[in-house]
Amino acid sequence: MKEAKKIPYKIYLEESEMPKEWYNVRADMKNKPAPLLNPGTLEPMTFEELRGVFCDELVRQELDDTTPYFEIPQEIQDFYKMYRPSPLVRAYCLEEALQTPAKIYYKFEGNNTSGSHKLNSAIAQAYYAKKQGLKGVTTETGAGQWGTALSMACAYLGLDCQVYMVKCSYEQKPFRREVMRTYGANVTPSPSETTNVGRKILAEHPGTSGSLGCAISEAVEAAVSQDGYRYVLGSVLSQVLLHQSVIGLETKAALDKYGITPDVIIGCAGGGSNLGGLISPFMGEKLRGEKDYQIIAVEPASCPSITRGRYAYDFCDTGMVCPLAKMYTLGSGFIPSPNHAGGLRYHGMSSVLSQLYDDKLMEAISIEQTAVFDAATKFARIEGILPAPESSHAIKAAMDEAMKCKETGEEKTIVFGLTGTGYFDMVAYEKFNNGEMTDYIPSDDDLAKGFAGLPEV
Amino acid sequence: MKEAKKIPYKIYLEESEMPKEWYNVRADMKNKPAPLLNPGTLEPMTFEELRGVFCDELVRQELDDTTPYFEIPQEIQDFYKMYRPSPLVRAYCLEEALQTPAKIYYKFEGNNTSGSHKLNSAIAQAYYAKKQGLKGVTTETGAGQWGTALSMACAYLGLDCQVYMVKCSYEQKPFRREVMRTYGANVTPSPSETTNVGRKILAEHPGTSGSLGCAISEAVEAAVSQDGYRYVLGSVLSQVLLHQSVIGLETKAALDKYGITPDVIIGCAGGGSNLGGLISPFMGEKLRGEKDYQIIAVEPASCPSITRGRYAYDFCDTGMVCPLAKMYTLGSGFIPSPNHAGGLRYHGMSSVLSQLYDDKLMEAISIEQTAVFDAATKFARIEGILPAPESSHAIKAAMDEAMKCKETGEEKTIVFGLTGTGYFDMVAYEKFNNGEMTDYIPSDDDLAKGFAGLPEV
Repeated sequence: MKEAKKIPYKIYLEESEMPKEWYNVRADMKNKPAPLLNPGTLEPMTFEELRGVFCDELVRQELDDTTPYFEIPQEIQDFYKMYRPSPLVRAYCLEEALQTPAKIYYKFEGNNTSGSHKLNSAIAQAYYAKKQGLKGVTTETGAGQWGTALSMACAYLGLDCQVYMVKCSYEQKPFRREVMRTYGANVTPSPSETTNVGRKILAEHPGTSGSLGCAISEAVEAAVSQDGYRYVLGSVLSQVLLHQSVIGLETKAALDKYGITPDVIIGCAGGGSNLGGLISPFMGEKLRGEKDYQIIAVEPASCPSITRGRYAYDFCDTGMVCPLAKMYTLGSGFIPSPNHAGGLRYHGMSSVLSQLYDDKLMEAISIEQTAVFDAATKFARIEGILPAPESSHAIKAAMDEAMKCKETGEEKTIVFGLTGTGYFDMVAYEKFNNGEMTDYIPSDDDLAKGFAGLPEV
Repeated sequence: MKEAKKIPYKIYLEESEMPKEWYNVRADMKNKPAPLLNPGTLEPMTFEELRGVFCDELVRQELDDTTPYFEIPQEIQDFYKMYRPSPLVRAYCLEEALQTPAKIYYKFEGNNTSGSHKLNSAIAQAYYAKKQGLKGVTTETGAGQWGTALSMACAYLGLDCQVYMVKCSYEQKPFRREVMRTYGANVTPSPSETTNVGRKILAEHPGTSGSLGCAISEAVEAAVSQDGYRYVLGSVLSQVLLHQSVIGLETKAALDKYGITPDVIIGCAGGGSNLGGLISPFMGEKLRGEKDYQIIAVEPASCPSITRGRYAYDFCDTGMVCPLAKMYTLGSGFIPSPNHAGGLRYHGMSSVLSQLYDDKLMEAISIEQTAVFDAATKFARIEGILPAPESSHAIKAAMDEAMKCKETGEEKTIVFGLTGTGYFDMVAYEKFNNGEMTDYIPSDDDLAKGFAGLPEV
C-alpha cells in the first residue's frame, strides 16, 4: 500500500485518539473458545462459582464471548494517560542494518516502570477490585513484570498486594522484589511454605525452581483463604486479552493514521496476554473477512506449548485448584527448565489463542534461547532499546521475516510487539555476554511425562 | 498566564518541532565563565593544548562563548529521533495528591536504555570522535548512566568505548556493568591498577570507594596514552551543557505550544549537565531581560559544592591531570561519602552554572538523602515512575515548592527536570525500604580539608 505521509520514527497518538473501549475478539469468533470447566463436576464454571476467586465485574468479562466492545472506565483511561499511548516505532535503523526491503514497526510497551505491557490489565483488575470494596489482591509473577505492574496499580489505588514470585525469577531478579516493595507489595518466592499447595509441591519436588503453574496455585489459595481478597492473573484469561486489546487498538489507530496495512504481525507468547492484545483488532478484521494478515506466535523452544503441546482440557495451575481450560498445553505437571524468559515459562496458552490457532487463523514457531539473546543484543545496539528476553523472541522472528524479504525482494510490512525492557534481566544477559548460556529443548519423553498428567475430560 | 488549550498528561512535540540547533547560553552571558587554565602556565588553555585530550570539534564548542546557536548535525538529529522528543509531563496526580494549587510539570528524560538525559551529549561526543576518524573514546562514570549512554552511542557508531566506573557505583550497580558490556564497552572499577594515577590514589587512600574526580583522572590518562583515542566527559564542560540544551529547548517549545510560562524551574545538580541543559533557553531570556524565572539548583547535602563550596580555580579531577576550571568547588581532594546519588558526587560544578550562580541569576539548595528517597517513593507511587536518586533531589524540591503554594494559595507553575529512572538503584531503594539508610553531612572540618587542597591561582 502506498504510504501517504512521511512516517516519523515514532508514531504517538494524541490523547483524544486513545481507545475508549476494549475490543473483545471472542465476539467475532465463529468457533468460541471452550468454556472453563469446574474440575469437580466438569460442567462450565458459573458466575457464582467464579466470583469466589475473581471480582464480579472481571467474571462478567471472562464469561462474555458475545459483546464486542467494553467501555474503559474513565479512571482507567486517566491512568492509561500517565504512560500511554505507547509509541509505534518505525525501525529505520534495523531496516538499514539488515539491508532489507521490509518495513518494520514495533509497538513498544516498555516505557513504564513495570517495564512491560502488563500494566494495561493490572490497573483494570485492581480498579474493579477497589470498586467492589475489597482489601487487596493476590497474584503470581514469573519474570516479575506482572507483579511489578500489579504493585504499581495497587499503590495507586491504595489496595494491598500479595505476590507469589516464581523462585528462579526471584533469585535471578533480586531487584524486581525491591521495586515491588517500593510500591508496597509483599513478595514471596514460590513454591513457599506459606500455603498448603506450596508445601505439597516442595515435598514432591524438593529444590524445584518453580513455575507459573505452582505460583498460581499458591496465589489462588491465598486469595480464597483471606477475607476481602481476590485473585488476579496477568495472562491466559480472556479478561486479560480484553484489557490488552488496548495495545492492538492503539497500533491499528497509529497505522491507519498513516495509511499503513501490515502484512505480518508477530508477538511472543507465554500465556498470550501480549500476543492476544496486539492481534485482537487485526484478528477481528480477519474473522469478519474484511482483511487478511499473517499472524505469528513465537514461543521458547524450552516451553513449546503451541508448537509441541496438545489441544486439550487441562488445569491452569500445577496444584490443580483452578478451573480446567481447553488450551494448547504441555500438561500442568510440566515444569520447564529455568529459561530466562520467565514470562514465557507457562505450560499452557490462552483459550482464545488456542482456538484461533486450532482454526488455522494464526501460525506458531519456537526459538532457542541463545538465538533469542543474540537477536536481543543486536537489536539493543541498533535500535537503542535493551529488550526483555520475552520480547526478544518476537524480535528474532521479525528479523528472520525481514531477512526472507531480503531474499525474495518483497517489501512486506512487519509489525511486532516489543513487550518490555530487559533492565532486570541482566543476570541472563551476563550469562550470554560470558558465553555461558545454553539451550534446552525438552525431549519427546519429557513432554510425554507432562501429557501423562492431563485430566480425562 | 491563561492556558489556551486543555493540557494533556504528556506533551510530545512532533518530529518537525524538535530542535535543529543547540543553544549556547554563554553567548548571552555578560560575565562569561572563566576560561580553563593550563595547570603548568596558568594561562588559558588553547585549542592546540586541548585537542590532545578532546576531539577538535568539541574543543571548538568548548572554547566558543559567543556563538549563540550550533547546528545539530543531521546524523545526531536522526539518533535523537530514536528516543526523543522526551515527554513534558503534567503531574496531575501529584498535584491532586499534594492538594496544591501549583501546576507541576516535569521533563522526563528517562525513557531510553541509558535511563537518563546523558545520551543527548554521548551521541554528540561519539559522533564527533567518529567523524575525526578516531578508534575510540575513554570516560568515567559515576552512577553508570553516562557510561551506559556512551556505550550505546559508541555501539551505534562502531567506536571502541572504555569506561572507568566509580568503585562504589560499580559495586552498588552490578547490572549497569552488564548493560555497558551488552553494548560492547570495557568497564573498569576506579581507582584501578590500570593507570599511574589510579595506582597513586590507591596507595594514598587504600580502600577508597572512589569519586568522579579519581575516575576522570584515570580516563584522561587512558585517552592520552593510546593512539586514536580521546577523552569524553558527561558533565561539567560547557560543550556538554550545549548538547544538553536540547532538554530546555524541547521543554520551552512544549510549554510555548500551550501558552504556559513557568514561574519556577528546578533541576538536580552534580556537574551541571541536566540543570544547565534544562535552564539554558530560559536563562537566555532572563539574561536578555526578556523574562524572569526563579531557577533552583538542588544538590545532595553530602556533596554541597554550590551551597557550601568556594568559587575558585580548581582541578577538575583528583589526579590533577586536567586543566583548572573556575567553579564552585569543595576541592578536588574532597572525597564524598558513598551517597547513592552517584551522579551527584562531584566536588565541583560547571563553570557556566557557577558564574550564573555567582551573578545571582539562580539559587541553590541542598537536601539530605533520606528526605530524597522519601520523596522518590511517594512520587513513584503517585506518578508511576520510579525515579533515579539524582532526579529525586529535584522531585523533593518541587514538592516543597508546591507545598509552599498550598500555604500561600499561589498558583505557580513549577517545571522540574526528571533526569532518569532508578531501575539500577535498587540496592539504595532496598536500604531505604529496610530503614537502613542514613544521612551524611560533611562537617566544616571535612570541608576545610578539601579547601586546603585548592591550588593558588
